[in-house]
Amino acid sequence: MTETALKTPALPTGGGQPFGGDAQASPADLPADLGDPLAVAQALIRQPSVTPDPGGAQQVLAAMLERLGFAVTSLPFGEGEGRTPNLFARLGTAGPHICYAGHTDVVPPGNEADWRVPPYAGEVVDGLLYGRGACDMKGGIAAFVAAVARLVAKGAPRGSISFLITGDEEGPATYGTCKVLEWMEQNGQIPTYCLVGEPTNPATLGEMLKIGRRGSLNAHIVVEGTQGHAAYPHRADNPVHRLLDVLAALRATPLDHGTTYFEPSSLQVTSLDVGNMATNVIPARAQARLNIRFNDLHTGAALKGWLETTCRSLAPRSKVDVRISGESFLTQPGPETEQLVNAITQVTGLVPALDTGGGTSDARFIARYCPVSEFGLVGASIHKVDEHTAVADLLKLAEIYETFLKGVGM
Amino acid sequence: MTETALKTPALPTGGGQPFGGDAQASPADLPADLGDPLAVAQALIRQPSVTPDPGGAQQVLAAMLERLGFAVTSLPFGEGEGRTPNLFARLGTAGPHICYAGHTDVVPPGNEADWRVPPYAGEVVDGLLYGRGACDMKGGIAAFVAAVARLVAKGAPRGSISFLITGDEEGPATYGTCKVLEWMEQNGQIPTYCLVGEPTNPATLGEMLKIGRRGSLNAHIVVEGTQGHAAYPHRADNPVHRLLDVLAALRATPLDHGTTYFEPSSLQVTSLDVGNMATNVIPARAQARLNIRFNDLHTGAALKGWLETTCRSLAPRSKVDVRISGESFLTQPGPETEQLVNAITQVTGLVPALDTGGGTSDARFIARYCPVSEFGLVGASIHKVDEHTAVADLLKLAEIYETFLKGVGM
Ligand SMILES: [Zn+2]
Ligand SMILES: [Zn+2]
Repeated sequence: MTETALKTPALPTGGGQPFGGDAQASPADLPADLGDPLAVAQALIRQPSVTPDPGGAQQVLAAMLERLGFAVTSLPFGEGEGRTPNLFARLGTAGPHICYAGHTDVVPPGNEADWRVPPYAGEVVDGLLYGRGACDMKGGIAAFVAAVARLVAKGAPRGSISFLITGDEEGPATYGTCKVLEWMEQNGQIPTYCLVGEPTNPATLGEMLKIGRRGSLNAHIVVEGTQGHAAYPHRADNPVHRLLDVLAALRATPLDHGTTYFEPSSLQVTSLDVGNMATNVIPARAQARLNIRFNDLHTGAALKGWLETTCRSLAPRSKVDVRISGESFLTQPGPETEQLVNAITQVTGLVPALDTGGGTSDARFIARYCPVSEFGLVGASIHKVDEHTAVADLLKLAEIYETFLKGVGM
Repeated sequence: MTETALKTPALPTGGGQPFGGDAQASPADLPADLGDPLAVAQALIRQPSVTPDPGGAQQVLAAMLERLGFAVTSLPFGEGEGRTPNLFARLGTAGPHICYAGHTDVVPPGNEADWRVPPYAGEVVDGLLYGRGACDMKGGIAAFVAAVARLVAKGAPRGSISFLITGDEEGPATYGTCKVLEWMEQNGQIPTYCLVGEPTNPATLGEMLKIGRRGSLNAHIVVEGTQGHAAYPHRADNPVHRLLDVLAALRATPLDHGTTYFEPSSLQVTSLDVGNMATNVIPARAQARLNIRFNDLHTGAALKGWLETTCRSLAPRSKVDVRISGESFLTQPGPETEQLVNAITQVTGLVPALDTGGGTSDARFIARYCPVSEFGLVGASIHKVDEHTAVADLLKLAEIYETFLKGVGM
């Protein structure tokens, strides 16, 4: 466990400013008991915050964290009206420094009339808390706030605890977690370990922890040929056949057979586009789009090179446009992850799988700075109408987080 | 050489009627010397006859053939305004019966202002006869008329000579050559041998004769899959991958390696269509279109079966729609084709290749009834602006046709 040298936070680059007395959430918005994850989650859900969070949800959170003794810094990035609200808050200055990362922004509710209860009401029906963000991820943040509140109630933690919260995770994320991490590095705030509170459990709380994610890239291949009559193929250069040869070569060998913590990498051709309705004509151009989800045996750059070489050799007149959405990353299980697993097992009776599947999350940015894992609520209803979490899961998650914080020495 | 039993033409089914005195072409439209292929070609070109020929070109032709002693029967087929004009004309009743087949309709001229001379003027500039139909194929018909006129000038031919002329070869051809052949069969007019006057020479008169054509079919394959997220391919069924597997199987083995008179059959994938712009989504459906040009080792039905079986085995949820445009056919070289080759060599000094390549022609219908070959002018300028033939070629072609007719016993 490496302890990070700690400096007094400097004034943030990019216009950071303490929330201080400026936090506009009225005391009425704040729950009386911050150790109650349901009350905290309801307070957050009741602040509509479709990406980018206009600020209310972060103000409520900042006020709660200030009440718990955190030094809260507002870190809006970007320009003008669409600035992304972000916050960094830290309690204590000693190591180890455990950071909890997440987002207050939510995806749009869809047709509100389709919801069982209004999406921003935070109502509980039959033991389920409904609302946009209930599991992705205001519920997760609330569980961590509650865990910290219970710890603080027993005395100041031994190390330090921080929150890295963005208002733009569901959007382009350009002025979110990335920028906050740059600020944290410049200000000596890089933590010992980071826990991202995304909903990682497919169906049951405790079944899955993420210790990495696959990388993802998208490629658009355009092959030029020479148009001609289908009866005289030798006078034409059929770009469809060249494209089929390229795709066959790309699909011929599996990229790999998986690694200890990763599934085999996967290449999916997602579109083919020629648009030639003339049955007797060989077209001039053919296009394909593909997506590669890759594990830690690959880098985006190496895969880009492989795509380009394959296209060049089988279709000399082709272009490949490659966009790398994220590199793969892996935090090899160490003492903090072990404490997290122990806490999960102690509370739920389950031994969580150490998974690396699924889409990408902001953890890919954090992994460049420090070890990171992800554990939160059950994700089955996220981004859907009637997003909800069992209140029981919320209580258990707060207990897991509290047990974890004690386990790593707070 | 099989001689066909000859009957007196009965009244045509489908409304056939003798042109007789009804042919409305005025004597001024007819050249004085029918033995002059240039004059005959000009008379035909000056009757605009974009598909379907409105009738004028066929009336001029009918009047010329009547003057040569032919019994001319008008055979319009189809309904109403858009009826297709066709004619069958025969000189003599004895065997052998040599039929010349062709069409008076032409493709549209395009922008008439782009032409060096007006497309229906029939002007000669620098030894070249310009005009729509100059080589495809009013020039060819004119050469045959001139050949017959010269023969007739020396006395009645020993066998008999006929013309099978349609006004809809460049169009759907539904009421053209097919229907005339049915009528000919019903009326005992199937010839010993048929010569189609399409422009078969790529660049030089005498270089190429066609004795068959490849068949052609078009297939449209639609593969259904199960949509899903690109990060979880095991939960989806990627129809693009199934389609790529189908196409790889179809392209894996050459259909054949060619036969004595045919090139290898060719399969060209002409379109691929998915239209999925969402990079992280596996689509629900993928489509492909392909064209097969096949030789005498295949039938359309057998290829259809092969396409269906391959799709069914690799993409169970797929549909294949197969349209057979024409079966392949071949007239094994016999005595008439030998006489045609001799005539070509005698006039041009060239030994024509016995070819079966290129697109389809009405010869595919004729091949069901009797041996057929195709030989005409140089096709380089057909269907283009400034369609033209060398006047010298027109003269040589008339000489070739005359030599051929003498060679087969007229
Ligand atoms: Zn989330
Ligand atoms: Zn033609």
